[in-house]
Amino acid sequence: MRINLLCMGKTADRTMASLIEYYQNRLPKFWNFQITELNDVRNVKNLSPEQLKSEEAKLFLNLLDHRDYIILLDENGAQYTSRQFSGKIERWMGDSVRNVVFIIGGAYGFSDEMYARANEKISLSSMTFTHQMIRLFFVEQLYRADQILSGKPYHND
Amino acid sequence: MRINLLCMGKTADRTMASLIEYYQNRLPKFWNFQITELNDVRNVKNLSPEQLKSEEAKLFLNLLDHRDYIILLDENGAQYTSRQFSGKIERWMGDSVRNVVFIIGGAYGFSDEMYARANEKISLSSMTFTHQMIRLFFVEQLYRADQILSGKPYHND
Repeated sequence: MRINLLCMGKTADRTMASLIEYYQNRLPKFWNFQITELNDVRNVKNLSPEQLKSEEAKLFLNLLDHRDYIILLDENGAQYTSRQFSGKIERWMGDSVRNVVFIIGGAYGFSDEMYARANEKISLSSMTFTHQMIRLFFVEQLYRADQILSGKPYHND
Repeated sequence: MRINLLCMGKTADRTMASLIEYYQNRLPKFWNFQITELNDVRNVKNLSPEQLKSEEAKLFLNLLDHRDYIILLDENGAQYTSRQFSGKIERWMGDSVRNVVFIIGGAYGFSDEMYARANEKISLSSMTFTHQMIRLFFVEQLYRADQILSGKPYHND
């Protein structure tokens, strides 16, 4: 199984990037985890939020295969505990899902095309966080999921 | 108004500490925001989780005044959007609450004494994060709340 994280925009903050790498380097090799950071859409001042989301959708869709299992990290998504989330990953591995792609959108969220293409929506919190922080948050959850699935003592319920 | 954050354990990771400071230094002066990190309880190997939580409760309660408004950051707490959370802070300022104290517990959460003393419980996420990460997320939410209340463009709904 491959787990990919697609994000709009680069992680400019080196401090944040180093924390993300810390967890990323500790994920199981057989998840083939990869983060792909897309360049922000240019000349956004002339675009409405709807137009911007639509431009971002083109960039995302361009990187996706029709067999990919797509999960949007979206504030209107379903919420799970860390243990439930680890159970989802276990199920994808059991179902031999080849490519699981998590997507963090831009500042205004996702366009309707993206919602139409997605297999699931997951919300990490009812609160809004910076897009950089969502990446950190998310990578730590992946690490935690592996620790739970491996029966390691990292996670206390 | 004073806003305090009490946490069990020190932020050992310098990278994380510098990100926390980044937001902390940008909070409004009239919130008098302060983080108090308590030393971990010693010799925990000989304690059950219940005993440990009870020892931690003693340390927390020792620092609290009976007039303090206490909010536990707890996985069973109520969830709010960032805008709702900023509305709560605005109400406390309007009600002239003097001391608002947020508390992040130890690895096993809070004892019954702490639940009995608390005025509210807030959950930042259904997922479990490291205690260091909760501090970072929380301080960013305070910063975001101020940006929302000041009508700054930082937050997009």
